Amino acid sequence: MSLLLANGTGFAQQKRNITYVPATNLQIVGKVDATPQAFHRIDTASFPLLPAAVKRRVVQSGGLAISFTTNSTSVYVKWCTKETTVSATMTAVAYRGLDLYIKNDAGFWQYAGVARPRAGQTCAATTIVQGMDTREKECLLYLPLYDETVRLEVGVDQGASLEAGPYPFEKRVLVYGSSIVQGAAASRPGLAYPARLARETGIDFLNLGMGGSAKMEKVVADMLATLPVDAFVLDCVPNSTPDQIRQRTSYLIASIRMKHPKAPIIVMQSVIRERGYFNLRSGERVRLQNEYIKEEVSKLKEKGVDDLYFVSSEGFLGHDHEGSVDGTHPNDLGFDRMIQKIKPVLMEILL
Amino acid sequence: MSLLLANGTGFAQQKRNITYVPATNLQIVGKVDATPQAFHRIDTASFPLLPAAVKRRVVQSGGLAISFTTNSTSVYVKWCTKETTVSATMTAVAYRGLDLYIKNDAGFWQYAGVARPRAGQTCAATTIVQGMDTREKECLLYLPLYDETVRLEVGVDQGASLEAGPYPFEKRVLVYGSSIVQGAAASRPGLAYPARLARETGIDFLNLGMGGSAKMEKVVADMLATLPVDAFVLDCVPNSTPDQIRQRTSYLIASIRMKHPKAPIIVMQSVIRERGYFNLRSGERVRLQNEYIKEEVSKLKEKGVDDLYFVSSEGFLGHDHEGSVDGTHPNDLGFDRMIQKIKPVLMEILL
Repeated sequence: MSLLLANGTGFAQQKRNITYVPATNLQIVGKVDATPQAFHRIDTASFPLLPAAVKRRVVQSGGLAISFTTNSTSVYVKWCTKETTVSATMTAVAYRGLDLYIKNDAGFWQYAGVARPRAGQTCAATTIVQGMDTREKECLLYLPLYDETVRLEVGVDQGASLEAGPYPFEKRVLVYGSSIVQGAAASRPGLAYPARLARETGIDFLNLGMGGSAKMEKVVADMLATLPVDAFVLDCVPNSTPDQIRQRTSYLIASIRMKHPKAPIIVMQSVIRERGYFNLRSGERVRLQNEYIKEEVSKLKEKGVDDLYFVSSEGFLGHDHEGSVDGTHPNDLGFDRMIQKIKPVLMEILL
Repeated sequence: MSLLLANGTGFAQQKRNITYVPATNLQIVGKVDATPQAFHRIDTASFPLLPAAVKRRVVQSGGLAISFTTNSTSVYVKWCTKETTVSATMTAVAYRGLDLYIKNDAGFWQYAGVARPRAGQTCAATTIVQGMDTREKECLLYLPLYDETVRLEVGVDQGASLEAGPYPFEKRVLVYGSSIVQGAAASRPGLAYPARLARETGIDFLNLGMGGSAKMEKVVADMLATLPVDAFVLDCVPNSTPDQIRQRTSYLIASIRMKHPKAPIIVMQSVIRERGYFNLRSGERVRLQNEYIKEEVSKLKEKGVDDLYFVSSEGFLGHDHEGSVDGTHPNDLGFDRMIQKIKPVLMEILL
């Protein structure tokens, strides 16, 4: 009861002073590469030939997070993004909000709170969690999946501790892919599938999802090969046409292999697009995409490319057709089913 | 190949004429009660004393659907809602969009397409599914969960059939509850849990979710008792304070029992609010809510109220804390886990 009363005083943000720290002073997690702007994933100035559609996505903060420790009973956030629009099949919280996890007593990362952006405004300030006890906690704050984060500050009660946290994951596994990798349509940033995989396995799955792109363009293949990572997951079938898959897969894999002679390269088939069940043309396209990517990987293996793996998408979304928001993008249920399928396969290769 | 070519001509909405029919000429599904305005759930004029917060919700179309049959290769929709805002933890498609299911060859309702509202506009027109074969199909079109639907027309290719469909469900089971029943935060309208239960069981679970309300007010209890249904699911713990639960549960159940002497009344505990794990006050509130509702139901059973059932919320969202969008509202993963728990319990009572 005394515990309740003690916490009863901590709820009103107005009543107490808050100490804010720029997130760049804390530990940034999930960076694919070093960038002059902290919350970009790729420095587009270093890769000027990237397609515009790719440049637009790699400066969005999908997959990035901030690690910090605090004993504050509340955590506050102030942040600004570039846009105010949100796609019709995502929540504003996932698209341009924040998502906080805290390591629980059992040592697992556990959901603690979301920060809602303000409709029509690029900046917002809010309390993301409150009413906690004062034990020191490890926190992981996920950034907006689909917007560019231009400013972020983390706040705690005046007098409470706030330090950069340890880097929470080991091994760097790049996940190159489409909107599905970037996080559409997870309901909040921490539920994008690379983020869930990282928390559940301890391996740093680095989000290089590019909504609408990931078409294995030559210039993108060359860029991917330069990235400082230990392994590659290529989930880049959905937006590539069947012909592009035939024409581009071998170059992509050869480029990576040249710069990373021993890195595991894991190629995933596309999730079955639900809309393809009734839309016959759509269904045929997905069938061909998945057939061709399998053939391409088989050919490369026959040619002697080692440490190259293929993951079938069979049963990725389950069998009740409820695992997508729009026939294309998994919802949280679809992602969960997909993770149950791919996690053991990835672990066997990566551990 | 000829199939592909034949369908290749059917994709461009501009190229063909569309015949639109008002949805009110087709079969409306999921009505709690008769209303002068077809897409309202309750006629607020008949219950003038309802709290304003309740009136606001019961005119929203959450849970309503349109049953029709067609052999058109495409289905088109035109619709208008009242608002243009969307809550930050829901998708625009769920909040004010449309969601189409088609009965598949195995006789199951299967997702077929969503219609995205236009940002900033109350009206939109779009193709919800295309490229289908020309066999006659049974369709079920779910209306916006959180907006008031003021107009809806269904379109098919000129010359294609379009008829009111059969009423697809049997038995009328009212689900009275909060935002969770109304469908926050399902990713699309067809994934609200009463809708999923109806498709999976064939029983007509009627959505009377009221975001922010469902506080068992006396006037609401009196209204519920008048509704023409066969059974009641009361999922009304989340927004009721612990004290309200103690004060109001017995009146609610007595009112229903007086008008429905034999109808099963099923009382559900609240989903454990994820935010209550770190927020100690929030956690205590949910613990008390769930303890008190259990006590109230036990007392009524001891007093001899028959056909009264209690469903524990133990394990409703699973154990990884990933089943909510914001610590309060289940996401599609949380709803799926909840449905796996409650479906067999409900079926045992209702069948």
